[in-house]
Amino acid sequence: MAFFRTLIHLSSSIRSSPSPKPRIQFPPSSLFTFSTTTTTTKTLPQDPPIHPSPFPGLEPTKKGEKPRIVVLGSGWAGCRLMKGIDTEIYDVVCVSPRNHMVFTPLLASTCVGTLEFRSVAEPIARIQPAISRSPGSYFFLARCGSIDPDNHLVHCETVTDGGDSNIVEPWKFNVAYDKLIIASGAEATTFGIRGVKEHAIFLREVAHAQEIRRKLLLNLMLSDLPGISEEEKCRLLHCVVIGGGPTGVEFSGELSDFIIKDVQQRYSHVKDYIHVTLIEANEILSSFDVRLRQYATNQLIKSGVRLVRGVVKDVEPEKIILNDGTEVPYGLLVWSTGVGPSSFINSLEIPKSPGGRIGVDEWLRVPSIQDVFSIGDCCGFLESTGKPTLPALAQVAERQGKYLVGLLNRIGKAGGGHSNCTREVELGDPFVYRHMGSMASVGSYKALVDLRQNKESKGLSLAGFASWFIWRSAYLTRVVSWRNRFYVAINWATTFVFGRDTSRI
Amino acid sequence: MAFFRTLIHLSSSIRSSPSPKPRIQFPPSSLFTFSTTTTTTKTLPQDPPIHPSPFPGLEPTKKGEKPRIVVLGSGWAGCRLMKGIDTEIYDVVCVSPRNHMVFTPLLASTCVGTLEFRSVAEPIARIQPAISRSPGSYFFLARCGSIDPDNHLVHCETVTDGGDSNIVEPWKFNVAYDKLIIASGAEATTFGIRGVKEHAIFLREVAHAQEIRRKLLLNLMLSDLPGISEEEKCRLLHCVVIGGGPTGVEFSGELSDFIIKDVQQRYSHVKDYIHVTLIEANEILSSFDVRLRQYATNQLIKSGVRLVRGVVKDVEPEKIILNDGTEVPYGLLVWSTGVGPSSFINSLEIPKSPGGRIGVDEWLRVPSIQDVFSIGDCCGFLESTGKPTLPALAQVAERQGKYLVGLLNRIGKAGGGHSNCTREVELGDPFVYRHMGSMASVGSYKALVDLRQNKESKGLSLAGFASWFIWRSAYLTRVVSWRNRFYVAINWATTFVFGRDTSRI
Repeated sequence: MAFFRTLIHLSSSIRSSPSPKPRIQFPPSSLFTFSTTTTTTKTLPQDPPIHPSPFPGLEPTKKGEKPRIVVLGSGWAGCRLMKGIDTEIYDVVCVSPRNHMVFTPLLASTCVGTLEFRSVAEPIARIQPAISRSPGSYFFLARCGSIDPDNHLVHCETVTDGGDSNIVEPWKFNVAYDKLIIASGAEATTFGIRGVKEHAIFLREVAHAQEIRRKLLLNLMLSDLPGISEEEKCRLLHCVVIGGGPTGVEFSGELSDFIIKDVQQRYSHVKDYIHVTLIEANEILSSFDVRLRQYATNQLIKSGVRLVRGVVKDVEPEKIILNDGTEVPYGLLVWSTGVGPSSFINSLEIPKSPGGRIGVDEWLRVPSIQDVFSIGDCCGFLESTGKPTLPALAQVAERQGKYLVGLLNRIGKAGGGHSNCTREVELGDPFVYRHMGSMASVGSYKALVDLRQNKESKGLSLAGFASWFIWRSAYLTRVVSWRNRFYVAINWATTFVFGRDTSRI
Repeated sequence: MAFFRTLIHLSSSIRSSPSPKPRIQFPPSSLFTFSTTTTTTKTLPQDPPIHPSPFPGLEPTKKGEKPRIVVLGSGWAGCRLMKGIDTEIYDVVCVSPRNHMVFTPLLASTCVGTLEFRSVAEPIARIQPAISRSPGSYFFLARCGSIDPDNHLVHCETVTDGGDSNIVEPWKFNVAYDKLIIASGAEATTFGIRGVKEHAIFLREVAHAQEIRRKLLLNLMLSDLPGISEEEKCRLLHCVVIGGGPTGVEFSGELSDFIIKDVQQRYSHVKDYIHVTLIEANEILSSFDVRLRQYATNQLIKSGVRLVRGVVKDVEPEKIILNDGTEVPYGLLVWSTGVGPSSFINSLEIPKSPGGRIGVDEWLRVPSIQDVFSIGDCCGFLESTGKPTLPALAQVAERQGKYLVGLLNRIGKAGGGHSNCTREVELGDPFVYRHMGSMASVGSYKALVDLRQNKESKGLSLAGFASWFIWRSAYLTRVVSWRNRFYVAINWATTFVFGRDTSRI
C-alpha cells in the first residue's frame, strides 16, 4: 500500500504536527538544514472503524451533529443539487472522479479553440464553497464501487489516472451517509461495436476535448511533412463524426468554422485536403421538427460537412467499416451516439426503469432503498409511476437537482435529515418536468432554437443568425460562475479578433 | 511503415484530388452515401530523391528560387530570428518538436494557475505567418537527428509522442538548406543523479507546468481522503524545489502565493500540512548582488518557504536523499538546476566552446561548416575568439536571433542567400552582447530588479513592490503577440478578483 508506507521523516522542527494558527514554523535564521533524525510511525488510522468494513472512512454522523448528504457525481444534476444545499442544516460530501463540473453544451467549442478548456470547467469548490471550508464537508476524488444500504455506507476507491508521472495505487475507503444522492450520470454507448473504445474519441469530458484538439493539430502538421502521399494526407485530415445528435452536429459545425476561418489561413499547404463527414443512421437532430432539421442539413452542407447515412459495423485504427461494406479512412474519429447506463448503475441490484436506469418514484426517491435518491442521466421513473423516461439532457438533470435540493432542505428543516427518519416528513409536490425548448448551433453564426414543449405545441421555433445570437446569450447567462461567464465572453471576442489558438500544448 | 500503408479509399467523388478553389465538392443532394469502389495506390513518393539518402524530403533549392533558411528549434533565439526573416528574400523552414514558443519567464506562474498555459505559448505561425502561407515555407513537427554538411542536408524524424491515443511511427525525412540555424537549445542538467528524470519534473515546457499543476491539485485532494496518516499528508503536500536560480525562486514564490491566497481558503482541511522547501547547494539567486539576495531570502522565508542548503545525492519515488544522508519525503519535486548541452549537440562532431556548446565565431557562424550558424543556449564563443561563454538567458538568445537575422537579411539582399556563396558578402559588425539587467519575482507582489550590466557597475537595482510592478510591466510589453499580452493581463486581473482556478483538467 503505497499510501501507508512507513516513511522516514524530516527533523522534528519540520515534522512537527501542524499548529492551527501560525501556518509554517521555522527558525529565525535565514538558512537552516535538516537534521538526520528518523522515526518510524504507525501505518493505520487510530480509531478502529465501527462499521463491518476493513477500510477507513467517514463514520456515521452522531446525534447532535449535522446530517450528511453524500452526492455521487459532479455533473449537471449533482452540482445543481450541491449548489442549493442549506449548509446550515447539512454537511455535504461529493464523491466524483473529477473535481469540476463541465459545462457540456459548450464543450464542442473547446475542441477547436473557440473557447478555452477552463472556461467550461467549474471547480466544485466554487459551486459549493462549504465543501472546501466546512469541517464536515468534503470532496473526494474517487469512484463509488458499491452501496451498502443496510449500513448506510458507500464503498469508494480513488481515481488518480490521467497522465500523472507517478500513478499511485487506488486507496479504498467508506463514506457513511444520511441521505445518498446517486447522480453519477451515464456512459457513452458503443453498441458493442469493436474498436470504438480503442480508436474513437468521445466528447463528454474536458480530457476528450483536449485529446481531439491535440490530435487535430497533430494531423494538420503531419499531413504537411515531405513525402506524405496524397492518400495519407486525405486520411489524416478526414474528420469523421459518428452520430447526428446535437453534440455531433455542433462539433461538426465548429470543425467547419475552424476549417473555413483558420485552416484556410494558417495551414494553406494542406487546406484542400481537410474534410468533415458526419455519419448518422437515421435523421440528424431528430428531436427538432422537419423545418429546422432541413435548415440544419442545408447549413452543414453549405459549410462543407458531408452528411452520410450509414451504420458503423467495425472500427479499425485508421478506417471504419460501414454496414454496407464501405470503408472510410479517418484521421480523427469522434463518437457521439448518445448515452446508456454505466457499469456502476448496471451493477446495482435494485428495480430499474425501462432502459436500465435506476428506478425512481415521483419524488426522485429510490423506493427500494431507504434514504437514497437519484437524479440526472442515471435515473428514470419506475414503470409503476406511469411516467415516461426523460431524455438525457442537461436541463432535465439540472431541474431534478433543483427540485431534489428543495425537497432535502425541507426534510432537513423538519428534522428528518438524519438517516432512517424521513418517513414522518411531508414530501410536497412530486417532480414534474416541463421542457423549456432545445437549441443547437450549426456553425457559421447560425443556430436552431425551438422553444416549444414538443414538436406539436405552439411557440417560437426559429433558425439562423438570430437563433445563434439567442444561443450564445442563453449560454452566456447560464454559465455557472461570473469568472467563467467573463472568460467565455473574452474567448469569443478574442476568437473573433485574433482567430483560434493553434499551439499544440 | 504506418504512414505509407496501402489504403482503401472512399468513392471517387470523395477521393478526387483536391481542386484549388472550391474547397469541398459534394453532390447537390442533401444526403449521399459512399460507394464501395476500392483502389490501391503507390506507396512511395513519385520523384526519386536526388540526394544520397533513402528518405523523402525537401530538395535543394534551384537557381531562381528563393534560398531556404532552415531553423532547428522554436525557442527565444529561433523565434526571434524567424520573426525578422525577410520573406521576400528567403523561404523559411522550422524543424522543432513543438509548434509554439514558450514565454519561459512567465511559465512558473502557470503552474499554480496565476496565468493560463495558452497565455504563455505563442504559435510559430503567429510569429512568422509566411510559415503557414508561403508555398516554400514550412513548419515540421520533428527533431533533427544529424547534419550532412557535404550535401547541405538535415536528417529529421517526426515527434508525435505526448499523450495521443494513436501514437504513429516516427516518419523520417530530409531537408536541404541554404543556410542552417541551429537554435535547438539546451537540456536540463541532472548531474547524473539517479532518479531525477523518472521522479522530478523540470520546468521548461508547457507540458511540465501542466504536469506540476495536475500533480499539485491531485496531492491536495488525496491528502484530504479519510484514513490518510498524518505522515502521508505531510509527504503528499511537501513541495520540494531543487535549485535556487531565478526559475526555482519564482516558482517557490508562486507556490507560496497559491498557498497563502488559495489553499488557505479552498483546501482548509489540509492547509496546515502544505509546505514549500527550496534546496540549493550554494547561494540562491547568485547572479544578483548580496543586498538583493538577502531581500529575496527574507521575503521567501516570510512567505513560508523553507530554504535549505544541501546537495541531492539520490532521488527515490517518494523521497530525496541529500549528501549528508538526510532523507526528505516529497509529494511534488521540481528540478531546476540549470541547463547543459543536449544529446543532439553532444553528437555533433564539430569544434565546441568551453562547456561543450557549439563553437561559434563573432558573427555566430559555425566556422567549421559552411552556411551553418548557431544561436541561443546551444552555442558558445570558440576559445579562439577570446570572448566568454554567455549565460543561458532568454535575453541573450533573443539578442542573438535579432543580430543574426539582420546579418542573414543583408547577406540575402547582397545575393549571398544560396548555399556556398556567402564568402563574398561583407559581414559587418560582429555580435556584441550588452546585458540589460535581471529580474526575478519572489511572490507576495515583490520582485528584484537589477538594471546594471554587472554587479560592479553603476545603475538601478531595487527590490520590493515597485520592482514587482516593473517586473509585470516589462513582461507584459515583451509578450510576443497582442493576443497573449491581452490574455496575460486578463489572467492577472481574474486571479486578483476570483482567485486561481482549481479544476484539475
